[in-house]
Amino acid sequence: MGMKQFHTTFTKAIVLICYIVQAQFHSQAQNIARQELNFPDIPGFVTLKCDFHTHTVFSDGAVWPSVRITEAWRDGLDAICISDHIEYQPHHKDVNTDHNRSYELALPAAQRMGILLIRGAEITRSMPPGHFNALFIKDASLLAKDDFMEAIQAAAEQGAFIQWNHPCWDAQQPDTVRWFEEHTRLLAKGYLHGIEVINETQYCPEAQRWAVEKNLTITGNSDIHDPIDLFYHSQHIKRPVTLVFAREKTEASLKDALFERRTLVVSGDVYYGDSALLATLVSSSLKASPVMVYGQKEAFITLTNRSPVPLHLQFSNNEISLSPSDLVIPPGTTARLQLNGYANLPAGKLIAVPVHILNAFTLPETSLKYVLKLTLNP
Amino acid sequence: MGMKQFHTTFTKAIVLICYIVQAQFHSQAQNIARQELNFPDIPGFVTLKCDFHTHTVFSDGAVWPSVRITEAWRDGLDAICISDHIEYQPHHKDVNTDHNRSYELALPAAQRMGILLIRGAEITRSMPPGHFNALFIKDASLLAKDDFMEAIQAAAEQGAFIQWNHPCWDAQQPDTVRWFEEHTRLLAKGYLHGIEVINETQYCPEAQRWAVEKNLTITGNSDIHDPIDLFYHSQHIKRPVTLVFAREKTEASLKDALFERRTLVVSGDVYYGDSALLATLVSSSLKASPVMVYGQKEAFITLTNRSPVPLHLQFSNNEISLSPSDLVIPPGTTARLQLNGYANLPAGKLIAVPVHILNAFTLPETSLKYVLKLTLNP
Amino acid sequence: MGMKQFHTTFTKAIVLICYIVQAQFHSQAQNIARQELNFPDIPGFVTLKCDFHTHTVFSDGAVWPSVRITEAWRDGLDAICISDHIEYQPHHKDVNTDHNRSYELALPAAQRMGILLIRGAEITRSMPPGHFNALFIKDASLLAKDDFMEAIQAAAEQGAFIQWNHPCWDAQQPDTVRWFEEHTRLLAKGYLHGIEVINETQYCPEAQRWAVEKNLTITGNSDIHDPIDLFYHSQHIKRPVTLVFAREKTEASLKDALFERRTLVVSGDVYYGDSALLATLVSSSLKASPVMVYGQKEAFITLTNRSPVPLHLQFSNNEISLSPSDLVIPPGTTARLQLNGYANLPAGKLIAVPVHILNAFTLPETSLKYVLKLTLNP
Amino acid sequence: MGMKQFHTTFTKAIVLICYIVQAQFHSQAQNIARQELNFPDIPGFVTLKCDFHTHTVFSDGAVWPSVRITEAWRDGLDAICISDHIEYQPHHKDVNTDHNRSYELALPAAQRMGILLIRGAEITRSMPPGHFNALFIKDASLLAKDDFMEAIQAAAEQGAFIQWNHPCWDAQQPDTVRWFEEHTRLLAKGYLHGIEVINETQYCPEAQRWAVEKNLTITGNSDIHDPIDLFYHSQHIKRPVTLVFAREKTEASLKDALFERRTLVVSGDVYYGDSALLATLVSSSLKASPVMVYGQKEAFITLTNRSPVPLHLQFSNNEISLSPSDLVIPPGTTARLQLNGYANLPAGKLIAVPVHILNAFTLPETSLKYVLKLTLNP
Repeated sequence: MGMKQFHTTFTKAIVLICYIVQAQFHSQAQNIARQELNFPDIPGFVTLKCDFHTHTVFSDGAVWPSVRITEAWRDGLDAICISDHIEYQPHHKDVNTDHNRSYELALPAAQRMGILLIRGAEITRSMPPGHFNALFIKDASLLAKDDFMEAIQAAAEQGAFIQWNHPCWDAQQPDTVRWFEEHTRLLAKGYLHGIEVINETQYCPEAQRWAVEKNLTITGNSDIHDPIDLFYHSQHIKRPVTLVFAREKTEASLKDALFERRTLVVSGDVYYGDSALLATLVSSSLKASPVMVYGQKEAFITLTNRSPVPLHLQFSNNEISLSPSDLVIPPGTTARLQLNGYANLPAGKLIAVPVHILNAFTLPETSLKYVLKLTLNP
Repeated sequence: MGMKQFHTTFTKAIVLICYIVQAQFHSQAQNIARQELNFPDIPGFVTLKCDFHTHTVFSDGAVWPSVRITEAWRDGLDAICISDHIEYQPHHKDVNTDHNRSYELALPAAQRMGILLIRGAEITRSMPPGHFNALFIKDASLLAKDDFMEAIQAAAEQGAFIQWNHPCWDAQQPDTVRWFEEHTRLLAKGYLHGIEVINETQYCPEAQRWAVEKNLTITGNSDIHDPIDLFYHSQHIKRPVTLVFAREKTEASLKDALFERRTLVVSGDVYYGDSALLATLVSSSLKASPVMVYGQKEAFITLTNRSPVPLHLQFSNNEISLSPSDLVIPPGTTARLQLNGYANLPAGKLIAVPVHILNAFTLPETSLKYVLKLTLNP
Repeated sequence: MGMKQFHTTFTKAIVLICYIVQAQFHSQAQNIARQELNFPDIPGFVTLKCDFHTHTVFSDGAVWPSVRITEAWRDGLDAICISDHIEYQPHHKDVNTDHNRSYELALPAAQRMGILLIRGAEITRSMPPGHFNALFIKDASLLAKDDFMEAIQAAAEQGAFIQWNHPCWDAQQPDTVRWFEEHTRLLAKGYLHGIEVINETQYCPEAQRWAVEKNLTITGNSDIHDPIDLFYHSQHIKRPVTLVFAREKTEASLKDALFERRTLVVSGDVYYGDSALLATLVSSSLKASPVMVYGQKEAFITLTNRSPVPLHLQFSNNEISLSPSDLVIPPGTTARLQLNGYANLPAGKLIAVPVHILNAFTLPETSLKYVLKLTLNP
Repeated sequence: MGMKQFHTTFTKAIVLICYIVQAQFHSQAQNIARQELNFPDIPGFVTLKCDFHTHTVFSDGAVWPSVRITEAWRDGLDAICISDHIEYQPHHKDVNTDHNRSYELALPAAQRMGILLIRGAEITRSMPPGHFNALFIKDASLLAKDDFMEAIQAAAEQGAFIQWNHPCWDAQQPDTVRWFEEHTRLLAKGYLHGIEVINETQYCPEAQRWAVEKNLTITGNSDIHDPIDLFYHSQHIKRPVTLVFAREKTEASLKDALFERRTLVVSGDVYYGDSALLATLVSSSLKASPVMVYGQKEAFITLTNRSPVPLHLQFSNNEISLSPSDLVIPPGTTARLQLNGYANLPAGKLIAVPVHILNAFTLPETSLKYVLKLTLNP
């Protein structure tokens, strides 16, 4: 039967059935899709997408531990840490207070979904010194010490990577953002390895400066307490991500990469981090076509953004000028630029065009200087 | 200073600052917006948007009770019931097993957000008789009885509205969907008032038929265990809603309306329910312009859909024919239709055009017959 | 047959058919939906959504005139002007050069769709004096004069509303944005009535200042040459709209309203215009609940944004403070704010809370000061 | 200066400026982004995304020819044909009737944007024989013949690829869909090479059957007359695409591929075409992980969809069963499936799992049978 007869005879009944089939079908499709976050790998390293700061009902969060795994899977992450507070368990009347429990409950889901689950905890003190995440610990209950330095030491003795959380947090640094002597002491003892440049959606410029000055690893984390979508996706606010460049996708490689400072942070469509790493990632993300000459006067190139973050380019037009000189290239799209001043260049010659990536911050007021390499089509 | 100078001098610095301002701003905007679900009211009643079947960590759910309130606020609902299982508490090693606890923990949030929180519980037995929600109870712990009928009776004695949940559920009715003698007994005793026509995304046609035959109130509920967005919004599956037509937005009015069977169900862009109620809601949702005659030959009307659900219309063209004869009008949009056969009608005359609303089911295989009233522009 | 049997027996065949039905259905649904732009009316006036500057293939545009009508219908507009250039007709080798032709070709579609089509033309000169739209003319061909002032006069004699287009346009004002003596002369003769504060997506702050100083009507227009979606919607750039507050939806009322300066402009989620008109529109858009007191300590209000543009509020907290003090309320959503300092206020008392609407500009560097009126719930 | 001080001092002024910067920025960004349509290449061929049936103002379309090029660039296409009607030029009073003119006007834009522009025309007759596109012609004016067969012959003599357009079109085949003797004659003479299986959004099952029986190349085309977004994107209807598997991206390779029948059609998230080609494309699109065994009982795999079209899989569970057995994998996402029955398989062994791809039609009522190859992780 052709569509013609089919259509004439059965339409209304079929439309009704199709509404039901569609509904019925959805009820089977409870399988949650993982939205791949396609940050490219860089030479020698895989790019792991991570969130090192999350909470559950086992401290002051509002979800069961396994939810953090499902969310991570759905959001395209590779690794997370559940970092429930040691010193703050407001649900203690209703929920078990064992500091290792959230990890244990989340682990089976993590293994089933292939998410690296880092055992961790948040040592939670007033400022100074503030809050600190200890990652890669073995037993969180050993961190329950009255004395702050003893708690940190208990983490360090387990080989922990220790990061200072949200140094800019208003509630703890209402008027200024200070580095206290307690932080100097931690650093001197080898007890401070990382710092949050992004917490939730808040950027801490002081943290980015201190990271450079004091050789700390930067991270950017959700610090999520509610279900992730109540805060992050429903209002078009993107979940921050720490990109970790690891030799392979294993907990050991991840840990090495953190200690070796191979991280970048992405939040609100802005990159933060070391200029060499940023340039390498941009180089893997941004694909330039050869210069195509059309007629005798015009030439153009195309630039494709293969990463999941827009790239905001600003060209300083010198000998070679590109137009538009200021443009944003959304993820998965290609831009077309006119090129001037290429006239006397020999075919095949490599042209180096300087460009600022305005949404990549190497320091609080400094955008990444990148060099775009073009070749003239033979 | 004009934009011209402003732009020339400051662009790069300002763009950097604006990226940060934007990020910074978001970090203040933790205030969750309520997405209004603008179903129109109908004459004499306000339209309450409700979900009578949800779970928390206090039974087999994965969120803290207050999350259900925030989700309801965000999703534009007016009333919800947390219906944790009486007989199934898989987190009992880690979480308090008091059957009233989830209600108590959610209540302050409900009051702060203006959500009507119905105290309820799910009596959870194998089939027959299956699972039943008791709504508007006073003390959930009294429902913890070994004998099913005693549990139901304990609910009924508290004035509960009792609904049979998911009668089509595969796990309980794998081969056929049966009404058992236990259900007849419940009905006879006055212990059965409602039935789920939609559970999650699954439509149960038998439930819709039984509701008509046995005078039961229909509901459609999320039965959500995970955070709502892990199942419903992230995959473009809409949360089902029970529309309750109540005299006012109070718990007492809501209860009256449920016992008086003034409900409709919306799921997957399909309406289910009584044809008179459906026609009344469509009448409040669909606004027709007068017939506008253009030139000597052409006439048209516009139809605006003021509800948040698409309306799928199919005209049976008789004397008056409309074109297109089959169309979907998305929410918040207006369609334009050509009209033929109006020629000899006097100005001001009311024209009654029959139309099927294909996505409104009054019975499993029956779409709503509606009469569109048009007037000829003078 | 219940879904169960239905599902077991027919699934694959039905899924195939439903894919085809869905496709088939779409092929009937060529009826274009009008996306309603629900700006509220204000007391005494209907709010007409307008675009007074568009082009077609009859000057340097790229679409047939009827396309501008379909686009206007689809985009929720009430009135447009096709303002093809008098002096610039680059398609003259292939297309008729009659200056009235685009209007004539678009008119039948406008009548069929209920769009008010304003006959107009763009008088197109180098700066000074630049480009000018003449709206509400009777015969565009009379504007084809060598002498600029004669062309303007020919428009004025037809009762035209004359606006200066894009005074900030780089190509005509590369270094500064000047008001020339030609403009003074036009104004003196009564030949200048309006000015574009927004052209495409470009805001011209000088134009907004001059409008206030010289009693000009402000407009904001697309100046679209390509199909509207190639520029405006595909890149998340919203089409600018001139809101005209007219006594009724007729060309005569629209013309009166323009001469009487009852316009506001919306572009890029920012409002521009007179503070009294802006305050009236905000008052119709923003619905505050009464102050709801919860327990003995807490009070809150909700604010619902019924307009299609986000409202960005910033409270200056004095006696009464609201939290968050800085928030954006997206269209169709409700925000919830905590209220402090209300304690000693008697029930029913009206509270006046000052607030800045940050995305409403009354002058280039000035945001609208608005007073939010709250009542304490009895 | 840290964000703290920055924020306290400057917020309101900065927010105002950022609103303007954002608007200003957009006004520079008139550069249209190309949304890449990432269909994977297949071994030996590049996958070209094509539309072989479009119109302009030079026949009964509503856009200037260059618009079709910009739209194609924006929509991620590689090649298009402007196929204006030879016999139907309703704008002839206003527009040049030269049959080659639309090609000539579009060509410079095509070259600048790297779009392959195929010279073509639509020979437009009543049924039988209906409408035919001639692609790759040299001079369209030679096709203006009274006699149909002479027109086709004039195309064939230019080496044209000739396709029968929309054989199912209601206006031409109101009651049945017939293959007429005229079509047999064309085929016999070697004058018929292709057939539209999709025109606009309409699927023609007869065309798909005839293509198989008579060795015709299938295509699916927009047949767009309006601006593309007025019909296709604004109502969530996707533009149909003909996928052509060519040796390289040149007009010659494209032509070879069409004559050699290396095409598939995608419309409304459904694939149509030859089962071997479809299987090859699915194989390039769907990436399966190795089987991962977790604990002693559970195993799972992940499937990633790297194409821009959802894949709807239905497993027939035999020895090896996968759950869910029926699922849709949206573009750019990964699904996770449980695996049963793998227990006795040796590590490294290749497992072949049969699966139906429900949204890939090899014949009107036949979905693609595909074999998913899995390996057991060592």
